[in-house]
Amino acid sequence: MIKTDALIIGGSAAGLVAGITVRRHYPDAKITLVRKEQQVLIPCGIPYIFGTVGSADKNLIPDAALSKNGIDLIVDEATSIDKEAKTVATAGGETIGYEKLFLAIGSQPLVPPLPGVDLEGVFSVKKDVPYLNGLMEALNKAKDVVVIGGGFIGLEMADECKKRDLNVTVVEMLPHCLFLVFDEHICVRMEEVLAERGIKVMTNNKATAILGDRKVKGVKLGSGEELKADVVIFGIGVRPNTKLAQDAGLRIGERRSIWVDRYMRTSDDSIFAVGDCAEKIDFITNRPSALRLASIATTEAHIAGANFGELRRENVGAIGVFSTKVGGLSLGMAGMRAKAAREAGLDVVVGTAETVNRHPGGMPGATKMRVDLVFHKWSCKLIGGQVSGGDSVGEFVNVIAAAIATGATADKIATFQVGTHPALTASPIAYPLVNAAELALKQMR
Amino acid sequence: MIKTDALIIGGSAAGLVAGITVRRHYPDAKITLVRKEQQVLIPCGIPYIFGTVGSADKNLIPDAALSKNGIDLIVDEATSIDKEAKTVATAGGETIGYEKLFLAIGSQPLVPPLPGVDLEGVFSVKKDVPYLNGLMEALNKAKDVVVIGGGFIGLEMADECKKRDLNVTVVEMLPHCLFLVFDEHICVRMEEVLAERGIKVMTNNKATAILGDRKVKGVKLGSGEELKADVVIFGIGVRPNTKLAQDAGLRIGERRSIWVDRYMRTSDDSIFAVGDCAEKIDFITNRPSALRLASIATTEAHIAGANFGELRRENVGAIGVFSTKVGGLSLGMAGMRAKAAREAGLDVVVGTAETVNRHPGGMPGATKMRVDLVFHKWSCKLIGGQVSGGDSVGEFVNVIAAAIATGATADKIATFQVGTHPALTASPIAYPLVNAAELALKQMR
Repeated sequence: MIKTDALIIGGSAAGLVAGITVRRHYPDAKITLVRKEQQVLIPCGIPYIFGTVGSADKNLIPDAALSKNGIDLIVDEATSIDKEAKTVATAGGETIGYEKLFLAIGSQPLVPPLPGVDLEGVFSVKKDVPYLNGLMEALNKAKDVVVIGGGFIGLEMADECKKRDLNVTVVEMLPHCLFLVFDEHICVRMEEVLAERGIKVMTNNKATAILGDRKVKGVKLGSGEELKADVVIFGIGVRPNTKLAQDAGLRIGERRSIWVDRYMRTSDDSIFAVGDCAEKIDFITNRPSALRLASIATTEAHIAGANFGELRRENVGAIGVFSTKVGGLSLGMAGMRAKAAREAGLDVVVGTAETVNRHPGGMPGATKMRVDLVFHKWSCKLIGGQVSGGDSVGEFVNVIAAAIATGATADKIATFQVGTHPALTASPIAYPLVNAAELALKQMR
Repeated sequence: MIKTDALIIGGSAAGLVAGITVRRHYPDAKITLVRKEQQVLIPCGIPYIFGTVGSADKNLIPDAALSKNGIDLIVDEATSIDKEAKTVATAGGETIGYEKLFLAIGSQPLVPPLPGVDLEGVFSVKKDVPYLNGLMEALNKAKDVVVIGGGFIGLEMADECKKRDLNVTVVEMLPHCLFLVFDEHICVRMEEVLAERGIKVMTNNKATAILGDRKVKGVKLGSGEELKADVVIFGIGVRPNTKLAQDAGLRIGERRSIWVDRYMRTSDDSIFAVGDCAEKIDFITNRPSALRLASIATTEAHIAGANFGELRRENVGAIGVFSTKVGGLSLGMAGMRAKAAREAGLDVVVGTAETVNRHPGGMPGATKMRVDLVFHKWSCKLIGGQVSGGDSVGEFVNVIAAAIATGATADKIATFQVGTHPALTASPIAYPLVNAAELALKQMR
């Protein structure tokens, strides 16, 4: 039997960062990480394998991050937990004793139980190198690709397939792409960009069957239409992995993920859960949240890892900070939309500012930029923000996220001091975070 | 005599934003802006006129910002203030009565009293369209340019001149360019980029005379060396304009600018001062500060404008947030450096993280990125940060600035939730703000 202090199950972002954080906070701890994959993919980088970086091998988290932090790696599959004995058994026949256990066992892509989903050429976005190599081979021979799901992963996969000059169609159930995350005006802007790039988007529609014999030939839609397809890719969300926890008698939460408290402890004091497998509580609503993001996973890992020896950090809840880019259009979102906030029972006001992300507007790379900030009317605190524009959106949304996390009010944000530069940002006169806050204030008093 | 409610003297960033802010907070106020310039330049855009946007005309703040906000414009020069009568007299013979007066009278570039500074071909970076048109004409005929001062403006002017294929030399008194703002490792990195771009930098050196008869021919240095020059540009800082205030008996501060309280009021309750002409108090040290930035000016204008009718906002002090870009290297800085903090009597620790600004590293545009965060050891609050990397530095430094402004501690920042995307940011595992905070924590306890 192996004995360790901190045992981590799962080697993706959450598991790795949990291990590194234990090491940073507890230099003398023995740390062991068990994962079943030979190689670990950078999760958010997966779509970019297919049209940009060229192969799954170029999208790996290097194991040097483990060795550099003195984390022992065991490639094996954890099959059961004995909470009383504080041991984990593996498929390879090993038993590993732990002081504290960290479950970072992730999620599986959802594939609906449609006829034909098992045909050759039907894929989802699995974090699995050999599987993605299979998708790459299929795309190498394909002409027509249908992506089912117009969320982030779906659009990014569609755009990467388009970079390979394939005929690409996205099928989305809702009235717009990205409609679960962004306001309509942003979704429409993205649909324009997709159209410019020659990607066909069919909204208000859904797949009812995958057609073909052994191999996929097409997709049948709710509208009755049939789309030709050599490859079909599902990008409709994930289902948390919970079997290991459930079998061990750990509590499962409302959202069918592993229940955790604010310290990221499961119903067993010696077992933490982090990342996609762990239940999330929304920062604003205090209700269970369906958000699953690598950046939430790593935050949870920074919390749980610090709590290995003593309870040091509490989770304030999932804010949800997203960004994406298609063509020249970048989008960012943090916290809540006005619509969702109102549905949740909060009275909110929205401040909107439009400008360009350079100054003067004649600077190279200048792109239109729009910011919508959502403030809780009673407390005046920022609870959400959306931004569209050029590449600077990627960090701009993190300014919004920092303001949400620190409880900044509209008045505070209206007097934020910001760095501005002609080649890098909007002008100090038009800086849209400050101006959107100032305009929201007018609606608050 | 004209009567107005809010009278603003000065039409650059501070004056304009003061006017817009009065309008936003007090929809019914009569607002009048007096400025002496026919056209107003975007201050931070001035260097980019010469190598990028092509003419001063393309770097103007449009007067539509005034008319759209119902601000009356008078192009004239304010010559005196009568505090008791609450009137301002102008060079054009007008008298304007006010309820509240906003002085946004800016600053002048410093030119040292060296022999030859009045020669033809010697310039500073004045916010004056005809003057800058003169500089443009001189550059059109020039071959050798000497820039005196290796700060932001100096380097940006040097880089723009280099884009015109001129021989460019920068003369800097200190051991490094940008040494007043950045740590040595960043200054050295910038000097490498300047060298790659063929810009000669002479540090630890200063101009002792400008050579020539009617027209400049060269620059004599402290080292004895003589540099050939058709054009000499001074970029060594600014001197606040205070005469109008001083003549009116308003109090002048320690740093030879117009004294103001936290509400941005001068020693007269009815007169505010904002922007380069107004005294600044450092956010961290609580001491008068030499910082002069358009973004500080606009923040002060958001404060003073809101205080027109009642006292709504207080100035927390100047944080100082900078960014710049030369070649592919962008730099950002917010708050205090460790060295300056220690000199000011604060015990600090520094957390450093290095990564790339994309993930995986094979994504196009991936650039090395380094972040140094300075934390006050006792309170654990972030008080400063420096970042070098690609374009994303421009908004990344604003995440740092927001964290400083909101009093975020290292522990809070180590659990910040951030948006990450392969094409736009570092990976969630390596996000350098979070990791630098985590590494600083190790030195705090």
